[in-house]
Amino acid sequence: MLNVALLGAGRIAGVHATAISSHPQSRLSAVADINVAAAERLAAQYGAAVRSIDEILADASVDAVLIATSTDTHSDLIERATAAGKAVLCEKPVDLSLERALACQKAVSASGKPVMIGFNRRFDPNFAALKAASERGEIGKSELLSITSFDPAPPPVSYIKVSGGIFRDMMIHDFDMSNFIMGSVPKTVSAVGSSIVDPEIGAAGDIDTAVVTLQYDDGRVAVIKNSRRAVYGYDQRLELLGSEGLLQAQNMLESTVVKSTTSGVVSAKPTYFFLERYMPAYAAEWAAFVEAVAGGDSVPVTLEDGVAALAMAEAAARSLSSRRPVDLADILG
Amino acid sequence: MLNVALLGAGRIAGVHATAISSHPQSRLSAVADINVAAAERLAAQYGAAVRSIDEILADASVDAVLIATSTDTHSDLIERATAAGKAVLCEKPVDLSLERALACQKAVSASGKPVMIGFNRRFDPNFAALKAASERGEIGKSELLSITSFDPAPPPVSYIKVSGGIFRDMMIHDFDMSNFIMGSVPKTVSAVGSSIVDPEIGAAGDIDTAVVTLQYDDGRVAVIKNSRRAVYGYDQRLELLGSEGLLQAQNMLESTVVKSTTSGVVSAKPTYFFLERYMPAYAAEWAAFVEAVAGGDSVPVTLEDGVAALAMAEAAARSLSSRRPVDLADILG
Amino acid sequence: MLNVALLGAGRIAGVHATAISSHPQSRLSAVADINVAAAERLAAQYGAAVRSIDEILADASVDAVLIATSTDTHSDLIERATAAGKAVLCEKPVDLSLERALACQKAVSASGKPVMIGFNRRFDPNFAALKAASERGEIGKSELLSITSFDPAPPPVSYIKVSGGIFRDMMIHDFDMSNFIMGSVPKTVSAVGSSIVDPEIGAAGDIDTAVVTLQYDDGRVAVIKNSRRAVYGYDQRLELLGSEGLLQAQNMLESTVVKSTTSGVVSAKPTYFFLERYMPAYAAEWAAFVEAVAGGDSVPVTLEDGVAALAMAEAAARSLSSRRPVDLADILG
Amino acid sequence: MLNVALLGAGRIAGVHATAISSHPQSRLSAVADINVAAAERLAAQYGAAVRSIDEILADASVDAVLIATSTDTHSDLIERATAAGKAVLCEKPVDLSLERALACQKAVSASGKPVMIGFNRRFDPNFAALKAASERGEIGKSELLSITSFDPAPPPVSYIKVSGGIFRDMMIHDFDMSNFIMGSVPKTVSAVGSSIVDPEIGAAGDIDTAVVTLQYDDGRVAVIKNSRRAVYGYDQRLELLGSEGLLQAQNMLESTVVKSTTSGVVSAKPTYFFLERYMPAYAAEWAAFVEAVAGGDSVPVTLEDGVAALAMAEAAARSLSSRRPVDLADILG
Repeated sequence: MLNVALLGAGRIAGVHATAISSHPQSRLSAVADINVAAAERLAAQYGAAVRSIDEILADASVDAVLIATSTDTHSDLIERATAAGKAVLCEKPVDLSLERALACQKAVSASGKPVMIGFNRRFDPNFAALKAASERGEIGKSELLSITSFDPAPPPVSYIKVSGGIFRDMMIHDFDMSNFIMGSVPKTVSAVGSSIVDPEIGAAGDIDTAVVTLQYDDGRVAVIKNSRRAVYGYDQRLELLGSEGLLQAQNMLESTVVKSTTSGVVSAKPTYFFLERYMPAYAAEWAAFVEAVAGGDSVPVTLEDGVAALAMAEAAARSLSSRRPVDLADILG
Repeated sequence: MLNVALLGAGRIAGVHATAISSHPQSRLSAVADINVAAAERLAAQYGAAVRSIDEILADASVDAVLIATSTDTHSDLIERATAAGKAVLCEKPVDLSLERALACQKAVSASGKPVMIGFNRRFDPNFAALKAASERGEIGKSELLSITSFDPAPPPVSYIKVSGGIFRDMMIHDFDMSNFIMGSVPKTVSAVGSSIVDPEIGAAGDIDTAVVTLQYDDGRVAVIKNSRRAVYGYDQRLELLGSEGLLQAQNMLESTVVKSTTSGVVSAKPTYFFLERYMPAYAAEWAAFVEAVAGGDSVPVTLEDGVAALAMAEAAARSLSSRRPVDLADILG
Repeated sequence: MLNVALLGAGRIAGVHATAISSHPQSRLSAVADINVAAAERLAAQYGAAVRSIDEILADASVDAVLIATSTDTHSDLIERATAAGKAVLCEKPVDLSLERALACQKAVSASGKPVMIGFNRRFDPNFAALKAASERGEIGKSELLSITSFDPAPPPVSYIKVSGGIFRDMMIHDFDMSNFIMGSVPKTVSAVGSSIVDPEIGAAGDIDTAVVTLQYDDGRVAVIKNSRRAVYGYDQRLELLGSEGLLQAQNMLESTVVKSTTSGVVSAKPTYFFLERYMPAYAAEWAAFVEAVAGGDSVPVTLEDGVAALAMAEAAARSLSSRRPVDLADILG
Repeated sequence: MLNVALLGAGRIAGVHATAISSHPQSRLSAVADINVAAAERLAAQYGAAVRSIDEILADASVDAVLIATSTDTHSDLIERATAAGKAVLCEKPVDLSLERALACQKAVSASGKPVMIGFNRRFDPNFAALKAASERGEIGKSELLSITSFDPAPPPVSYIKVSGGIFRDMMIHDFDMSNFIMGSVPKTVSAVGSSIVDPEIGAAGDIDTAVVTLQYDDGRVAVIKNSRRAVYGYDQRLELLGSEGLLQAQNMLESTVVKSTTSGVVSAKPTYFFLERYMPAYAAEWAAFVEAVAGGDSVPVTLEDGVAALAMAEAAARSLSSRRPVDLADILG
């Protein structure tokens, strides 16, 4: 039985609390948050204690911490928790600063403790099934990957301003997905984009519509499309062309009901947003973490994976501003 | 907080135990089963006690019982539990004998306690969405309902022999579904069928392939198709034609992955069987029961509904053997 | 080169004129119609002559006639044309009177000339592909066939009155389709139905919504659903359940465009009516006729097939009025 | 009645011959080809004469010529035909040399004769319906266009060598499609690609897998994906994201038959290649040409459109070799 403390008590922390409590081999013992009321609400719901981070890290009976605090605290907390001997599952991204994330990576590797980064989409049953079919060779050799990843609505501009930008905040999921599906990082990153959805986003120095192409050493190509607004719902699709076929992971729909009238044939929309779409993925992610930690195995999404996705976001940002393709090697130095 | 005891500890009881435990307003306190080992396993998993049915019914702190024992005990347990002042959720069917079910209905109505019959499919999100769209008038006036309901594989012949036959065991779900969607019982039931899937089923006196047509007083028509074997999975679909359109509830698929190769375009199969397909329905069913009991409202699927479906099964069986349409009024006397 | 005369110059005759003219091995030489203006229009468009039926039948250079006149003339014209040594393709049905159709069948068999009945749906590429897959054993042994066949809108009541009723006018296509797919005629026909779409149709002595079940000697079952009104378009679907799977032929849609908005995901409607949906089928039907006649082979849809479908319509009508299943053997005497 | 001569008697010329002959307002009077046997075959089939190009251009009774000869002759023939007073429909591309195409454009504008370029895909009913929906504002303001355009199999390397490369030979269709859907040419073109399908294609100096991103003055973005090999068929899809929704044009399938077995749910593949997929488009293209010429209207796809697509191909080729985005203005000088 894994004794788990949850750092953070916001919305995504609540999702993780359910996963931790529902898993037969883990229990939620403590919750910490600077917003004490939020911590108390969450702790009460799952029968856990409210404790400070210091108390949690000093408690030898806590086996693992799940970090779901604000992004600017991730690197510090990963370092402190591993130094305290805890296994860590940390929400993405590792950091907004690639330099800081690389330092964190170095610090952690000294500790030898497992650190898993919460790229939950790898555990979506559809994407995982696509990946498995690809690995079984069902479409031969991979050639061209396409990722469509549109949010239903843009976040407030106040959030945009502290988000690190579309590449570090939103497309970082898709960078990790391309690494997951393709099995390696790209050589070159090229980005185009604009703030066509909302000029306020442009005024805040960010873009809301972006297309990034990735080139791999062996000739493979990937293209990622992001938009901050798809009014019909959360659009999350993959397509992988191979030498012997095409694999597609399509959207999950709100229901299977189809209505045919004089106006046309109407199906349900995609499930609305990430909590609905990826709820099974969060449970599967937690199960994979528990299994790896309990079995002494390496975690399925490493801190190195988190750093790689961040480096690709950095490359994309530089490509956008320089209007040039950027080699990932130039980013990682 | 509803204090609940579970009568029965088989496979479907396990599904209910999860629903009871996960609901914020109910807790599972006791499990009873003649198979003590099974009761102990289930009770341990959810922190409940193993008790006898007598103990449970005598315990005033138990608010509700969920009956998931063998069919031949349903009527007796419904009567005893309501007499003991418990609210009841009982698995379908009420009984294999229509006469016995009618007697049970009379006995229970005296008690005044709520009895809900476990026609879980009414709580399937897709069928519920179809029903809601129909009630909102989205396809005008209903005219013709089609229900496709195929099991992935036939049960053992030993089960067939005690099942009450395809109409009481399998199509009873579809009879209830037609009552749910159409909002009333039919006037006339006509059945055809054969044992074409497995001659052993025919030798046991049952059929494995059946088509039943239902005629309503107001001219509406419904047709129900059953097969004990659809090798591609559990095929559960509805179609409702109305004066202004068509509503269809299609199968849920194992994943959204589509593979295109020289062999064709391959999608995932329907989710395999009722536990997978209707898992969300079981949770929604339980939530509806808790809400009705807690609020003092009438339950959404009544004992009368259970009797109506059973009467339709009886009519279908008579129609099959007599090769004549049978009026439901002739069954209910 | 087959020299062809067209008897009739109405809408469906125009479709056939295109097929005859476009086929590399046939040419349209003459058109006959009591509506001379219609005959002249059609003849002019395709460079054919306007002639009387007597002239056409007396002309030894005419190899074949296509009969697209009103139903009440079909039997007579089939007999006269075959007696005159012509090959015949005649629109369905052979006759509204089964007795007359049987007499026609006897008369024609004496002539030895090929007579093909225009059940165009057998030549629909989708239905033909389903049939071929079934014959290749792709779903094992056939067990349960479902035919959905809804017209977009009811015809005028004036037409209903002379149509012979829904079974002889509309479902006759589906009776032939069941014979085509199942490879044999059923043993028993059971019909239910009502005039729920339009009470005027009921007042005219017909129904507009019908469900017919067919039982076969070997235990197979088929169910045919007809409605005179599906406001979303012409709904023409088949489903065949077999021991190793399910084959479905779905509707053809007006386009492949899908629109996703806040209102849902909207696809195109089915192609509107039989001319649009079955245009390729009419061309394939004509090609099959030419190939059979040119090669001296038997035609793919015989006069016997036309009589069989008519007998099933007769059985369905008797079943509806008697509220009893009717054995086809009792119809055919 | 438009009197038309066909220059070229190859495979695509045969498609055009059918369209010309079937149209009620045009007739095919002459065919010219240096391969006399081919010209004779085609002329015989449609009752046309075999003539030299000189004879055709000198014949005042010829109203229009359809140029379906090899690409290197297009510019010359367009100039000669317009100088001779003929209306012209010329297969794409105008030329492999942008300089030559620009000279042709200047020469033709002096003649004042209509020249239409055969970008047949604009007339595909699905793409045309998507464009129409976009123009009606059904998804608000356009933001992000995606074009998937995969051939079923690569052409012979001998063809690749004279093709002008993937951008001028294959993606030129997609450049024109982006201009059609977006209603304007892009500002900047960025290309990546590789010869991952077949190293022989790389050895011949071309690529077989390409992704091109287009940026527009107003912030809109488009991405075009090409592969020379999609083994499952001809993959031709569009997606347009707008401020109020998404429009997709999906593939046309060989049939509507769906087979469900233990192996999964199998649909038909996309129609195999351009003749099958775009046959209706060729007829619609010809009808649009006839209507424009007969009505004295401007043709719906101009020589300027042909030059624009060629300039985008040129920009893509330069972007690929320079690994830099290329402004279209730098190409057009």
